[in-house]
Amino acid sequence: MTDIKETEQLVDLENNGLVLLQDKARFCFGMDAVLLSGFAQAKRGDRVLDMGTGTGILPILMSAKTEAAELVGLELQPESADMAERSVRLNHLEERVSIVTGDLCRASELFGKSSFDVVVSNPPYMTEGHGIVNPAEAKMIARHELFCTFSDVAREAAAVLKPGGHFYLVHRPFRLSELMVTLTEYKLEPKRMRLVYPFVDREPNMVLLECVRGGKARLTVEKPLIIWDKPGIYTEEVREKYGF
Amino acid sequence: MTDIKETEQLVDLENNGLVLLQDKARFCFGMDAVLLSGFAQAKRGDRVLDMGTGTGILPILMSAKTEAAELVGLELQPESADMAERSVRLNHLEERVSIVTGDLCRASELFGKSSFDVVVSNPPYMTEGHGIVNPAEAKMIARHELFCTFSDVAREAAAVLKPGGHFYLVHRPFRLSELMVTLTEYKLEPKRMRLVYPFVDREPNMVLLECVRGGKARLTVEKPLIIWDKPGIYTEEVREKYGF
Repeated sequence: MTDIKETEQLVDLENNGLVLLQDKARFCFGMDAVLLSGFAQAKRGDRVLDMGTGTGILPILMSAKTEAAELVGLELQPESADMAERSVRLNHLEERVSIVTGDLCRASELFGKSSFDVVVSNPPYMTEGHGIVNPAEAKMIARHELFCTFSDVAREAAAVLKPGGHFYLVHRPFRLSELMVTLTEYKLEPKRMRLVYPFVDREPNMVLLECVRGGKARLTVEKPLIIWDKPGIYTEEVREKYGF
Repeated sequence: MTDIKETEQLVDLENNGLVLLQDKARFCFGMDAVLLSGFAQAKRGDRVLDMGTGTGILPILMSAKTEAAELVGLELQPESADMAERSVRLNHLEERVSIVTGDLCRASELFGKSSFDVVVSNPPYMTEGHGIVNPAEAKMIARHELFCTFSDVAREAAAVLKPGGHFYLVHRPFRLSELMVTLTEYKLEPKRMRLVYPFVDREPNMVLLECVRGGKARLTVEKPLIIWDKPGIYTEEVREKYGF
């Protein structure tokens, strides 16, 4: 039996009956992870690693959206990893999804080099000391680069990916230039990008990127992903593709 | 008297009565340059350099849109430079706008280091051999990196700019990652970016970038610039801001 703690809620992911344990005192998944689960692709039989899986939203959603053979969620915080693991059991996904408690800065040591076809990540967005530091530690670790920098994420993603493997990430547009420099440094060539705009006349607040390990330099920038038609009304794409 | 050759047309720029000589057999200015002239900024008294000015569209438009004291257009092709110079005279802008025939790869030699407050450029987009090579030589030089690479453009822009000076450029989104790597390499930090989408549901076909020499890493990505509401109907922003 998977026990649900008193502070936890079981959230319906509106996708094939999937559910996820969430705890409002801790970091809860956002639209970022849901959009990344739709932007990322995995082929039948692929091995997929989620670096910094939190409560497991990405491997659990991608188990339904792709035919990946194996999805591994790596998470530093034992309490989040424990919630993710219980969610995996609640969804009866133990055969395809596994959760590993560990430091993403050491992913290639943990899993070995060139061991995954696909890496996904919704890493901390804020550089240390930048933005408001949330005093609740669990959220702080998820949001700020306290235990890993983007350079760590890119280095380890490149190391665990097979040559030609794909790295999908979501991040904040204000760091785009730095992301591209760092990704290129680790030979993770940005190949596809989509900016997420809350409204058609607003600045984007997320960027989705697909990189190929050892790919050639040529980026496809996709049409804008617009979230709201007007306040309270999601756009057709968001309703149809993401079930909001 | 400024003579107009038989193959040339005098185009109304729909801005303060400005006109520009164009020759259909040669490279004609596009929406790229017009959008860049609105994206770029120059303060009262600034010295502005346009690297690869073609027929002079950027300094001539920016003479009306800014209070820059001096605008210099640098152009490799003598025939284009000659047309630009005659357009300067036709607009009676000789006191503020000057055209120099020369190689942008040697801009810092020609003008001296740290000699401009603002640099603008609508450089060739295509790497050599990439895309369809136009057999008409004048167009080919304007479109393809035959005589300068983007690395040359960035190196010389950084060299002629004063510390804290601004570099504005327009380019193709498919080269965005490479642009950011190269700009960062020359300490031209990307600070502001706007993607230009022909329609709201299409891929962008231009990117406008503002960089600051020696600036801190933090990029503002602006709301999308959408050109057409529907085929034949420009969006309000394009009509109002650019006079299309």
